Amino acid sequence: MEESKKYHMSLDDFEHNGQELLSWIKKYYENIESYPVMSQTAPGQIRSALPPKAPQSGDTFQDILQDVEKIILPGITHWQSPNFFAYFPANASGPAILGDLLSSCFGVQGMIWATSPACTELETHILDWLVDMLDLPNKFKSSSDGGGVIQDTASSASLCAVLSAREKVTKFSSNMKGCHDKLVAYTSSQAHSSIEKAIKIAGIGKENLRLIDVDKEFAMRPELLDEQINKDIKRGKIPFFVCATVGTTSSNALDPLEAIGKICEWYQIWLHVDAAMSGTAAVCPEFRFIHEGLEYADSYCFNPHKWMFTNFDCDCFYVADRKVLIETLSILPEYLRNKATESGAVIDYRDWHVPLGRRFRSLKLWFVIRHYGIEGLQHHIRQHVKLAQQFADWVKRDHQFELVAPVPLNLVCFRHKAGDDFNANLLDKLNQSGELYLTHTKLNDCYTLRFCVGQTSTEQRHVVKAWRKIRETASKLDKTVH
Amino acid sequence: MEESKKYHMSLDDFEHNGQELLSWIKKYYENIESYPVMSQTAPGQIRSALPPKAPQSGDTFQDILQDVEKIILPGITHWQSPNFFAYFPANASGPAILGDLLSSCFGVQGMIWATSPACTELETHILDWLVDMLDLPNKFKSSSDGGGVIQDTASSASLCAVLSAREKVTKFSSNMKGCHDKLVAYTSSQAHSSIEKAIKIAGIGKENLRLIDVDKEFAMRPELLDEQINKDIKRGKIPFFVCATVGTTSSNALDPLEAIGKICEWYQIWLHVDAAMSGTAAVCPEFRFIHEGLEYADSYCFNPHKWMFTNFDCDCFYVADRKVLIETLSILPEYLRNKATESGAVIDYRDWHVPLGRRFRSLKLWFVIRHYGIEGLQHHIRQHVKLAQQFADWVKRDHQFELVAPVPLNLVCFRHKAGDDFNANLLDKLNQSGELYLTHTKLNDCYTLRFCVGQTSTEQRHVVKAWRKIRETASKLDKTVH
Repeated sequence: MEESKKYHMSLDDFEHNGQELLSWIKKYYENIESYPVMSQTAPGQIRSALPPKAPQSGDTFQDILQDVEKIILPGITHWQSPNFFAYFPANASGPAILGDLLSSCFGVQGMIWATSPACTELETHILDWLVDMLDLPNKFKSSSDGGGVIQDTASSASLCAVLSAREKVTKFSSNMKGCHDKLVAYTSSQAHSSIEKAIKIAGIGKENLRLIDVDKEFAMRPELLDEQINKDIKRGKIPFFVCATVGTTSSNALDPLEAIGKICEWYQIWLHVDAAMSGTAAVCPEFRFIHEGLEYADSYCFNPHKWMFTNFDCDCFYVADRKVLIETLSILPEYLRNKATESGAVIDYRDWHVPLGRRFRSLKLWFVIRHYGIEGLQHHIRQHVKLAQQFADWVKRDHQFELVAPVPLNLVCFRHKAGDDFNANLLDKLNQSGELYLTHTKLNDCYTLRFCVGQTSTEQRHVVKAWRKIRETASKLDKTVH
Repeated sequence: MEESKKYHMSLDDFEHNGQELLSWIKKYYENIESYPVMSQTAPGQIRSALPPKAPQSGDTFQDILQDVEKIILPGITHWQSPNFFAYFPANASGPAILGDLLSSCFGVQGMIWATSPACTELETHILDWLVDMLDLPNKFKSSSDGGGVIQDTASSASLCAVLSAREKVTKFSSNMKGCHDKLVAYTSSQAHSSIEKAIKIAGIGKENLRLIDVDKEFAMRPELLDEQINKDIKRGKIPFFVCATVGTTSSNALDPLEAIGKICEWYQIWLHVDAAMSGTAAVCPEFRFIHEGLEYADSYCFNPHKWMFTNFDCDCFYVADRKVLIETLSILPEYLRNKATESGAVIDYRDWHVPLGRRFRSLKLWFVIRHYGIEGLQHHIRQHVKLAQQFADWVKRDHQFELVAPVPLNLVCFRHKAGDDFNANLLDKLNQSGELYLTHTKLNDCYTLRFCVGQTSTEQRHVVKAWRKIRETASKLDKTVH
């Protein structure tokens, strides 16, 4: 064999090994319900099965695949199992996985338009499609002054929103001179931890993030936001950023965007709306109430990698004024100069997020939308919401359990009436059974179970079985305790 | 069909469509040299071929694949072509693509150990392997006080280094109170633009980033660094961060780590070393000179997605003291609490970078190392360096061309002696030919062509052909000009 090809996998082998892997994946999905949903591995167990040093000579693909089965598989928590009801979902689908395979194959690095025009233009185009599909404000379209970009996660999107707001209010002087300590940001006490993280990263400081209290439905109280902003202004502080959440992580609470938006408009504060999971629901007209008031937002994000059948990572981040975002994050070294950029006729996405490099992530999103069509997405989102509502109904009718928060969409927060320890025990037993996987939160200081329906292949039978298992496990625990 | 499965791609269809896609990919790679390396698309051309609205009903996989061929393919700049010599490579390989496919299939979200122990443990393990493979300082291993993590890009790794340094020097008060304007950072005038970006993001301010001048080989001059630090301290500033580069983007210059490291040690300044592309070379003992002095570094990164046959994105980021990094980026909301985390026996990678969510990226790296073995990686890295050295030799022997910088590894900076406009024209003509793709930079204010050998399938014949094309095109241009 030619020296220069010596160790590479030939194209024939690639196709052959790929086919073998595809059958393996098919078998994995066929058997997925037979594995414990939450991995039952002990800390260090995977590592102890791996050799301490990298191999000197290469192994065959069959060897590698065998080790996947033997070593890796037991260490997988099966996010793609229909019995996964934990956290928020990170659902995948056939078309997404194949779209992502094509992205790996092209291996383009789409930092600027010229390094693969299709990577940039498909992304802009699909993100415009999604504005229509979710009926988002038109200002988020690339044909207006705004536009969308794919980020890895909502954490990164929030960071970009914080930075843009910081630069806008300081007239881009923070980028030049560093941050000063007068800036103040606001979010609810139920907001995602990534907001605090972004505020720290951006040099604002956690002490300058106000956590506004929530109402009994865990949504931000706008009158308290207004009060706090007033108080801060009187102290000589500069309110610059508000993050409202459409579907908080703990309980899926919906902050009142319209009331918050009017306050932000009045004080000229950047409003970011984080709809990481719930945004997808807006593909169905009957769920668009979650976005009422979104026209006040300066930026917005939702994650197709949570509930839109597009495998991780894929967060769609929109801004109403792309110039601010670009000026905030722009760099242009000589080695990236090119005619297309200088013509001003193209988008260079490197200036829309933290990393310079970027893969072709819109392909998987395109494959998903093309495969399902709008009606397919609507159908499955409706199914998930219906199943969650059914589950909530069962909880309501059972005198041993209670709902802890409203259920606007697909997340049910509930608990057994026997108290915190009992619920913590119940969760442990359920997850150890391997038959399903839920997680918990605290609401009003009470240990609360979360049941989220959003996994691609979850059907009614899985939800029925889950509820039965929860009741059975609770009644067995009951006997042990009393 | 059951309502709940209605629009999903069945497993049979998934396997079948996947096989079709694999053959398409094989064909793509077989024909890759027949496409113009740099896409010849005009701005807006891709978008104009896409329908203005998302489809109401789903399309077949065959329809989608046809549109890939018809609409997407012409908009691809072929980073995987053996005639790609532009920027730095982002090389991929069969095992990497298949490992990534498996990652998409599992679709795990490895934010914490418990959400897929294998995702965390394989990553820690492989990053320890790489410390040995590259002969990096032992302190970067997880068995010491340090450890490694996969980030998307070197930009994000640098940001995490800046943040850790910021928190260490301010005793974690910047996270709480915000950044103050006394902090000063240092890097060379040839460092990557991502350092400036990170400094801006972190609230330090560009005016507090000193660009230290370089010597005639474009490497940082440590005596000037020392002088500048001294000057800043006298002014009441607090030097907190130095970034040294092992292989600058413009010319692959190697900053003198040992001299810089001693200065950082003396003043107790965080030293970050960015070896984004060149780090991979250290898999060969004869190239480990690039890391001389690395034992002084507090953090280090290199990108297997550039030159180690692992498709984008995959940056390996190491710290000597993981506690600082974790304390800098840690958040722990109730909904992420779990027994494994509280036991302290596991790593939760969400605290090692900006995003919360993360995909199973170590799989592709593991597949690559297993497939090639250390000797396979060494073989191909040596080949690339040999080919680049050969090219440099041809340039040297040709009286019309000249080398503009030393060629320590696989990047050749050269130009025609006829001046800036001529070289800019030459580059345009070459890239428009579609036969190869190079990019440019400016060195000593002169327009310089960059020729980087690192694409997986580049063989001697491609380099020979490229040089011939460059000379021919130059002599034709010559005649036009004179």
